[in-house]
Amino acid sequence: MAAKDQKKNSLKDRDQELFADWQTLHRVFIRPEDESSKQTLIKYMEQILFGLHDFLNKHVGVTEEISLAELSKNYTEVKINAEPRKKLAEVIEDIITDIAPRAVNVASPYFIGHMTSAIPFFMVHLKAISAALNQNVIKLETSKVLSVLEKQVLAKMHCMVYGKSQAFYAKHVQNTRTALGSFTTGGTTANITALWVARNKLFPPKEGFSGIEENGFFEAMRAHDLDRVVILVSKRGHFSLRKAGGILGIGNRNVIAVDVDENRSIDLAKLQHLIQTLKKDGRTKIAALIGIAGATETGIIDPLPQLADICEQQNIHFHVDAAWGGPVLLSERYRGLLKGIERADSVTIDCHKQFYMPMTAGMVYFKDPKALDAIAYHARYVNRKGSVDLGIKTLEGSRESSSLILDAALKIMGARGYGLMIEHGIETAKAFADKIRQRPLFELVSHPVLNILTYRVVPEQIRHQLAAAGPEEQITLNAALDEININIQRIQREAGKSFVSRTRLKLHPLDENNVVVLRTVIMNPMTTPDILDEILDEQELILSTLNW
Amino acid sequence: MAAKDQKKNSLKDRDQELFADWQTLHRVFIRPEDESSKQTLIKYMEQILFGLHDFLNKHVGVTEEISLAELSKNYTEVKINAEPRKKLAEVIEDIITDIAPRAVNVASPYFIGHMTSAIPFFMVHLKAISAALNQNVIKLETSKVLSVLEKQVLAKMHCMVYGKSQAFYAKHVQNTRTALGSFTTGGTTANITALWVARNKLFPPKEGFSGIEENGFFEAMRAHDLDRVVILVSKRGHFSLRKAGGILGIGNRNVIAVDVDENRSIDLAKLQHLIQTLKKDGRTKIAALIGIAGATETGIIDPLPQLADICEQQNIHFHVDAAWGGPVLLSERYRGLLKGIERADSVTIDCHKQFYMPMTAGMVYFKDPKALDAIAYHARYVNRKGSVDLGIKTLEGSRESSSLILDAALKIMGARGYGLMIEHGIETAKAFADKIRQRPLFELVSHPVLNILTYRVVPEQIRHQLAAAGPEEQITLNAALDEININIQRIQREAGKSFVSRTRLKLHPLDENNVVVLRTVIMNPMTTPDILDEILDEQELILSTLNW
Repeated sequence: MAAKDQKKNSLKDRDQELFADWQTLHRVFIRPEDESSKQTLIKYMEQILFGLHDFLNKHVGVTEEISLAELSKNYTEVKINAEPRKKLAEVIEDIITDIAPRAVNVASPYFIGHMTSAIPFFMVHLKAISAALNQNVIKLETSKVLSVLEKQVLAKMHCMVYGKSQAFYAKHVQNTRTALGSFTTGGTTANITALWVARNKLFPPKEGFSGIEENGFFEAMRAHDLDRVVILVSKRGHFSLRKAGGILGIGNRNVIAVDVDENRSIDLAKLQHLIQTLKKDGRTKIAALIGIAGATETGIIDPLPQLADICEQQNIHFHVDAAWGGPVLLSERYRGLLKGIERADSVTIDCHKQFYMPMTAGMVYFKDPKALDAIAYHARYVNRKGSVDLGIKTLEGSRESSSLILDAALKIMGARGYGLMIEHGIETAKAFADKIRQRPLFELVSHPVLNILTYRVVPEQIRHQLAAAGPEEQITLNAALDEININIQRIQREAGKSFVSRTRLKLHPLDENNVVVLRTVIMNPMTTPDILDEILDEQELILSTLNW
Repeated sequence: MAAKDQKKNSLKDRDQELFADWQTLHRVFIRPEDESSKQTLIKYMEQILFGLHDFLNKHVGVTEEISLAELSKNYTEVKINAEPRKKLAEVIEDIITDIAPRAVNVASPYFIGHMTSAIPFFMVHLKAISAALNQNVIKLETSKVLSVLEKQVLAKMHCMVYGKSQAFYAKHVQNTRTALGSFTTGGTTANITALWVARNKLFPPKEGFSGIEENGFFEAMRAHDLDRVVILVSKRGHFSLRKAGGILGIGNRNVIAVDVDENRSIDLAKLQHLIQTLKKDGRTKIAALIGIAGATETGIIDPLPQLADICEQQNIHFHVDAAWGGPVLLSERYRGLLKGIERADSVTIDCHKQFYMPMTAGMVYFKDPKALDAIAYHARYVNRKGSVDLGIKTLEGSRESSSLILDAALKIMGARGYGLMIEHGIETAKAFADKIRQRPLFELVSHPVLNILTYRVVPEQIRHQLAAAGPEEQITLNAALDEININIQRIQREAGKSFVSRTRLKLHPLDENNVVVLRTVIMNPMTTPDILDEILDEQELILSTLNW
């Protein structure tokens, strides 16, 4: 827009360079038709697609700790600018020069600390399409074909998980009365949705009671004459499950963390015993038993077939949290690891994890296409009964069409493309584990079943001391190692070239206490064994500079 | 990528044209460095920015009803393609030619039926930036500067709502121990978050009880010796509030819908009486009283100062659902309408509504910077106590950096820019109301306090009959009018040029029964009085073709 026009139409603040006026506002709503304005907008997009990338290439990880405090000082403005302060071009320029270098380059192959990674560049295009269409799939009237497409994508994913018959999908794929699952904004709300359904199933209506959703938790417990509702999951359960317990009124201490066995997956004997104990007096109900398919900290997969057996025998809702591991089903080589998932009543899978979609999208699937009826909500102006409106059976309200992105990504990648990424991750993690085993300064803590492993740095001197130490002394030595590993992780992060995360785990699954471990998630296809060697080299180097 | 290379590296399916191989996968993760590949990607983005727009221009609304059934038939595939099926260029082409024309053109100035509209074109750029950076603001380690920026944006919005002192914001803007609010994925989860906090505040720990979040709803009620928890809101409350009641274990029938008075806002006398009745036996607690600032169906604003008085007197959590109306605070001319909002304990505001951001983002604010402690969750690998990690106090887990988009939009638009849009909406709606009043075939049902109004079509003959009718006959006549209005709305939607929505409301606020009304939301700055005349003309024309 010409500065002259702006001035002419200003409503106020003629002193300032930029100001809001009606004509300018109009213009930001009309996509420019003339060639030169179009080229300007394209130029901006070029900056976004490639300018951002160049800057990110120079800054891998989180820079120095001190800069966070320093940085905070630059972000203390609390008044919204009255008049426009910047044009789009300047805003983009600022983001490229001020924000991007101080963000975290999750796309770096040296960034192996969290479940966030590089995404294929076509994802940015697909996200831009979703924004440009700006459909709201809460209702057909603001999404039309995208509601229909979403149902198809849900069916594809359901089929990937459950592999039901052709007749089953023919009946449900476009059925407006049933739902094979729902898109959510992430794994947390997917897990909450699944457990919400499980909670509600537990309290069928009876004389004088219309169900927990309507009457509430207290009346539900009285109507069904119970004292306690619990959810069972191994100690490796994601913290969203405790959160679900809290929000749903179950109480987060009633999300019972079952010990793991020597495989670091749920201890079946202890689980069985716990179930017997809980059931003994008939006053406790188990809302769900959760199997983990890809634990956040270790990547471990619980013994799903055995959990399915227990749930069938005991009539317990079987939920599988496959937020991380779900896409392993697309690898012919490794899908067997998830055997048993097809027996789950509900399954969580994240799109922004191993489907490599941009933040954020999750999904939850149900074996029973009527399961989501337990949480259906209607309104007078949308989501009327019997309508195609997808918002009837979702935790969230307004939602973008994430299914459009997943659908397109599946077409571009194919199951095989995703499968290759899964295979790369697992096999690179196994190679990494070998490297760790071969280096005397490192100790592998959890083995990579999938593409996640944990380890710690152990100076040789302490290693020898530990071997000879009694239980008391071991605690002291491990505390020293904790400090060392915390420092190594921090210093490496601050150096800004590589990033691993840290958590606390039992060194041996049956130990009493946790130790600090370094945690790596290998999901970037550009992460090579050489890079992993560099990361270990750097950690050795940092160790050599530490006073311990 | 050259087809030759693809072939050379294929792992399988040599017959097919496209297949997944390692080299191809690698390439989609490297942003192209050579000029010609860059130009190709830019070309695609040009298609997205302008190709989509051209197609949308030709298709305004939802096309014929029958095509939905027809459409469904095209989306019944349930197997994920094993090998890649399409390249990005083809996918984009398909979306432009097959999906976009069958989506809903929410950007049309003739689309005035829902709270979804055109967005400024720079929003697509900003969304692309957010996707390209792909930060996860759940934790500092995957977001760094964006966590700091988010805290600043939260402070700006908090200041817009609450206008606390400079000292207050200096203390909290970058305080890692407090939170002025949180971004959510939408108004629904913002409302749930607010009521979750309100629920938890109701049950402080006491001897043998550690709080409802930990011990659950049943123990909370027993520990505090209560029978019932309720939430109060007028009949115009958004359906997410009932959903919140359900999910939180309060029970959705305990979200009590209070009648409205002749202003269509909450009836204060009835509310006061209800509170007295509920409090009488000391066995019911009121978790929250909700004031609506921009009702979904009518745009009505509850008398916030009076509700604030009641909440203070009765010690009730005061939540204001300003998902729609929040940005009215940026209009100097109309911000007075929201007087009293600064006394709310919590406030919901949506970003994808009147902040014109792409789907989806919402926000919730709290007067007390410690309020969100009531729902804090920690994990061993992230969100450790005392960390800057924003994911400690949010319902959702992983989240994109919506604050980056809002921050940039505020810089580009200025408060004044948003204010102008608000003013246009309200004033155009008032002009529209006048037009409706002036046309003999229409009857205004709810007046526009903000930019939303409802009306219905009433053929003159029925209008006369209604004037003379007794109560019984009125019901019959209104039922006939309901049919007529349902048909007009449907036929207009199917014709595909314009779109208004419909809902059910009381014709006069104190009537017993609801009637069908047409509902319009004027939020597109391109919607002119002439367009509104065209929409009414078309409705008259449709009426003339109806057999009633």
